[in-house]
Amino acid sequence: MVSTDRHGFASDNNSGAHPKIMDAIIKANQGHVIAYGDDPYTQSACKKFEEVFGKGTQVYFVYNGTGANVVSLQAITSSFNAIICAQTAHINEDECGAPEKFTGCKLLTLPSSDGKIRVKQVEPLLHILGNEHHAQPCAVSITQATELGTVYRPEEIKAITTFAHDHGMRVHMDGARICNAAASLGLGLREITRDVGIDILSFGGTKNGLMFGEAVVIFDTELARDFKFIRKQSTQLASKMRFIAVQFETLLSDELWLENARHANEMARLLANEIKDIPGVEITQSVDINALFVKLPREIIPRLQEESFFYVWDEGQSIVRWMTSFDTTEEDIEAFVKLLKKHLASV
Amino acid sequence: MVSTDRHGFASDNNSGAHPKIMDAIIKANQGHVIAYGDDPYTQSACKKFEEVFGKGTQVYFVYNGTGANVVSLQAITSSFNAIICAQTAHINEDECGAPEKFTGCKLLTLPSSDGKIRVKQVEPLLHILGNEHHAQPCAVSITQATELGTVYRPEEIKAITTFAHDHGMRVHMDGARICNAAASLGLGLREITRDVGIDILSFGGTKNGLMFGEAVVIFDTELARDFKFIRKQSTQLASKMRFIAVQFETLLSDELWLENARHANEMARLLANEIKDIPGVEITQSVDINALFVKLPREIIPRLQEESFFYVWDEGQSIVRWMTSFDTTEEDIEAFVKLLKKHLASV
Amino acid sequence: MVSTDRHGFASDNNSGAHPKIMDAIIKANQGHVIAYGDDPYTQSACKKFEEVFGKGTQVYFVYNGTGANVVSLQAITSSFNAIICAQTAHINEDECGAPEKFTGCKLLTLPSSDGKIRVKQVEPLLHILGNEHHAQPCAVSITQATELGTVYRPEEIKAITTFAHDHGMRVHMDGARICNAAASLGLGLREITRDVGIDILSFGGTKNGLMFGEAVVIFDTELARDFKFIRKQSTQLASKMRFIAVQFETLLSDELWLENARHANEMARLLANEIKDIPGVEITQSVDINALFVKLPREIIPRLQEESFFYVWDEGQSIVRWMTSFDTTEEDIEAFVKLLKKHLASV
Amino acid sequence: MVSTDRHGFASDNNSGAHPKIMDAIIKANQGHVIAYGDDPYTQSACKKFEEVFGKGTQVYFVYNGTGANVVSLQAITSSFNAIICAQTAHINEDECGAPEKFTGCKLLTLPSSDGKIRVKQVEPLLHILGNEHHAQPCAVSITQATELGTVYRPEEIKAITTFAHDHGMRVHMDGARICNAAASLGLGLREITRDVGIDILSFGGTKNGLMFGEAVVIFDTELARDFKFIRKQSTQLASKMRFIAVQFETLLSDELWLENARHANEMARLLANEIKDIPGVEITQSVDINALFVKLPREIIPRLQEESFFYVWDEGQSIVRWMTSFDTTEEDIEAFVKLLKKHLASV
Repeated sequence: MVSTDRHGFASDNNSGAHPKIMDAIIKANQGHVIAYGDDPYTQSACKKFEEVFGKGTQVYFVYNGTGANVVSLQAITSSFNAIICAQTAHINEDECGAPEKFTGCKLLTLPSSDGKIRVKQVEPLLHILGNEHHAQPCAVSITQATELGTVYRPEEIKAITTFAHDHGMRVHMDGARICNAAASLGLGLREITRDVGIDILSFGGTKNGLMFGEAVVIFDTELARDFKFIRKQSTQLASKMRFIAVQFETLLSDELWLENARHANEMARLLANEIKDIPGVEITQSVDINALFVKLPREIIPRLQEESFFYVWDEGQSIVRWMTSFDTTEEDIEAFVKLLKKHLASV
Repeated sequence: MVSTDRHGFASDNNSGAHPKIMDAIIKANQGHVIAYGDDPYTQSACKKFEEVFGKGTQVYFVYNGTGANVVSLQAITSSFNAIICAQTAHINEDECGAPEKFTGCKLLTLPSSDGKIRVKQVEPLLHILGNEHHAQPCAVSITQATELGTVYRPEEIKAITTFAHDHGMRVHMDGARICNAAASLGLGLREITRDVGIDILSFGGTKNGLMFGEAVVIFDTELARDFKFIRKQSTQLASKMRFIAVQFETLLSDELWLENARHANEMARLLANEIKDIPGVEITQSVDINALFVKLPREIIPRLQEESFFYVWDEGQSIVRWMTSFDTTEEDIEAFVKLLKKHLASV
Repeated sequence: MVSTDRHGFASDNNSGAHPKIMDAIIKANQGHVIAYGDDPYTQSACKKFEEVFGKGTQVYFVYNGTGANVVSLQAITSSFNAIICAQTAHINEDECGAPEKFTGCKLLTLPSSDGKIRVKQVEPLLHILGNEHHAQPCAVSITQATELGTVYRPEEIKAITTFAHDHGMRVHMDGARICNAAASLGLGLREITRDVGIDILSFGGTKNGLMFGEAVVIFDTELARDFKFIRKQSTQLASKMRFIAVQFETLLSDELWLENARHANEMARLLANEIKDIPGVEITQSVDINALFVKLPREIIPRLQEESFFYVWDEGQSIVRWMTSFDTTEEDIEAFVKLLKKHLASV
Repeated sequence: MVSTDRHGFASDNNSGAHPKIMDAIIKANQGHVIAYGDDPYTQSACKKFEEVFGKGTQVYFVYNGTGANVVSLQAITSSFNAIICAQTAHINEDECGAPEKFTGCKLLTLPSSDGKIRVKQVEPLLHILGNEHHAQPCAVSITQATELGTVYRPEEIKAITTFAHDHGMRVHMDGARICNAAASLGLGLREITRDVGIDILSFGGTKNGLMFGEAVVIFDTELARDFKFIRKQSTQLASKMRFIAVQFETLLSDELWLENARHANEMARLLANEIKDIPGVEITQSVDINALFVKLPREIIPRLQEESFFYVWDEGQSIVRWMTSFDTTEEDIEAFVKLLKKHLASV
């Protein structure tokens, strides 16, 4: 059940918390402070977000990624609306229908071979605007980096947000791996979100070294008006909020977010380099962040999984997903490649 | 905004994490384990729950109390149902309508001067059973200890669960302060839940020394069948689950749950003793657990709050609520009573 | 099961359709017209509503009263809101939790001995505004005439709407028997709705001689923006809309609405006069419209029901409800009073 | 806005009510009967359904097709479930997201060029069963006849229901045009529903000559247990139920359902015959029922619509939809074909 190796390649959320994150939690564990976010730790963390994303940025801490997504989507929809996203989007594939339950909306999904969606795919969906028989598109949700490990360039995002805004729609970004995307692009967090027209962002922490906690970052301040009620009613208001706040404050200080993401990305590139020329192994997606999608001989997959667990991405095509993490080491990769080669040799 | 004293009396969730809880978290922070609960820490914690509550007990960890309540209530209702509870219940008063949103149900609330409900109040509500014009009662939710700091005796619970089961209803217990109740009664956790007919329990951790995390404990195993889907869709599935699991394992080991709860209760009794004879001060509820409800001269409330923050419970009647915690000290109480006397003297 | 008398006193919806309504339906049954309301019958009916309620009035036809109420309430709420109403309100008591399911909101109910609510009851509920732990009141719903057969005077409505608007809330009127109320007051339909600040009205037709169909009448035009989507998603968009439209056009023409309502009201007063001095019979509410609430000796109720069915309103207090209808005749009343006397004599 | 011809080809719900249906309504309009279905008309209609569909069939009348579908789907799902259907399904395309709002479920849609789905498309979706990250498929919904005017053969339905039942799923049939399908197949209503494993059926009336009203027909009696509560909470319980009941009783008597459906089907075949050899006109789907899908030269569409309104089905491919109805005459077709030829000649 549990991988016996120290750092596997199953998921970046199989790792623990980064030591600096743990230190911050320990330091925050003293005395009483008001619960539910009315405390100095939370206030300080919110200021840090304003430093990074600019004046007027509003931040709401939540527990997890699904939570961040569903509160964000509620803020920009009514139940008769439709949310446009990639078929591969986490909100469509991996949240057990939470977006539908919380918003009442229909998800209009677009096929995507690389996890990204394009304006030309969105456009044909809008002929139903104004027709009461159809759920009305009012939001586009994109994932940065995508579930397939690819990254939107800023101008690609800008094209989507411009089109969306021109048609009265808002744009949500699922940034579960936003830090990995920024590291990959060599750009700042603000440059690939607020500056290119994103209205509301699920800012991921857990996959980048936090123990728990995500942040909803709001750039369109109108959306902040009722947000605290949405968060509370959606069970995403933490009582001992300070313990999420100090993690984010630490992540955004001294560029820890970048250091962690960059390291994870580099480990993925290293792994890619080590395997790309191995016969029988095919990397099927651009390795932009800390994810590899790899086609393997079908029979070795279970044997490899047994020694170092990971997930099969596409059963039919025999494609697996390998994730690196902030704590992946070169030794982890060396050992894993050795395993891979051993099993390949046995075919 | 923030109380300047080390341990205030605003709420038991204004405290941090107990040192033993923090130690357990630190110890769990190594290497990779599978996310979402398929890890040895979670398995071990689940076994601990079976030790405490008996064979067959099913446990699902969640993030917080509102989360525990809404997933529990979903497990025992359909949207056309009604949930019977006290008007003062947390699910009715303090969750921003989360139960209605998640379940679609109506809450049928019963007046209660002490936070408890009685069978004779529930009975008249059942004449609508079978009549399609009315939301159909199918669940009773009781809080132990209640929001007014009182405690149900086991036979009182048994009376409710027997009646409910006889009428095809299930019983949920909101046990945000279940440990304080058990400590107060001098009974085991199982004796006031499973043994007296509770079907599903929100087991509170955060208010008794955890950093975050609650547990849904299921005694009617039929309810466990779909529970993991309900938890996930309700945004309450933690990825790095081990960090909740080890907290609960620690809480249930060496009777830490009892030690914490007993201490908090004792501190409340100490505070009660110190103030009960002060003129102008009136304790309005039985001090069974770590909560005091106190009627004060209206004008001193804001002055006292300024020096040591707490919540007004009933504006109209000038009643405030003081909570003690696992970390409340005798010095905290001494200092607080001194403050109180100072302000009373100034009236 | 079925009453053997021609016109019973069980409910005004036990009657059929008024002959003029039936004639209009028959006349509309020719040729093809576009479905879903884009037809000349519907356009004409909408104009008629503007004549009655004034320029800018927006009308949306729906199937039934619960439908009218839930689409109206959706238009003025978000799921984190609370709706304030009387405990006796149809939306609270008689719609199987439909308002909760459709809106996700909590209903905050006010006790009322006569079915009306007062500003002084609403006021104390507003101290929770802005506090994220509590569902946020944003709407008041009043019933005209009330479920207890009483009628708000225009100045009573104005007091509620003024207070509500001053506090950022909107006011919905459940007008299932709005015509009976207007007839009772001797006022026009506009005078007791739009002119006294109602934002959105469920205009009842079925209880006043229609075969089926109710209308949502919107005075705050902002609420009309998305209304057609809400109606459609809520299953309340009729395909052969003309058949609802012509009924309403007929009802509003030549004051048929008033004639029907006035007659029903008169029949109730006649019945009241006939029984008010009978020993053992006590009329417990003001007889403002077509409803009587009557306390009877407990033992005669089932015997009387067997010969002419009606509903028990309050089992505990032995109070029954008798409704007259547009088609109730003096002979019906004479026969019913005779029955009543016969059974009273047998006690 | 409104077609000037007596019987257009826009939709079968642009027609009025069949004369026999109208007569039945008129005849039912006398005296009082208990509301909400506890009346002899409704009882008699329910018996008629048992005659047609066999002993134990349970029937619940509702207002319209969307209503029938959403109550049916609620009866067979929980919010964490997924409903499998064709992309072209009415529940997916034409109900403004009502299924998502009412059930909370995700719709898993399958591409289909003819409106039908096949077992081999459903099978791959089931690998997610048991995995809490994904909405759990528990229901298949098929439309008979499909939205593209095609008809499932009984063995095709049987294949789907067998597979579904083998995997713990239930099968809903959207039978908005079930009568047209039966007429087309030359089979009885029972033979293409209950006998081939359908669990719950939306039985369409409005498109086959009713004024308003659909019926939910339940074959799996377990689903009937709570159905009346679902119907009521979903706003689909009619007060003057007799007026829906007598329409259905009439439709099922003397094979009026078959007569109407057969006629509409024949008119479609006649129209098809008249146009199939016209250059520039291409019939794109099998004409099994009363629907034609026709590819036309783009420029004539608006001109033709102006004289006789109909809907464009696929803007991109220049395909329109023409529906015939129970009241379409040979003269209507003659006139329409003449119009078509006139506009084609002008190209």
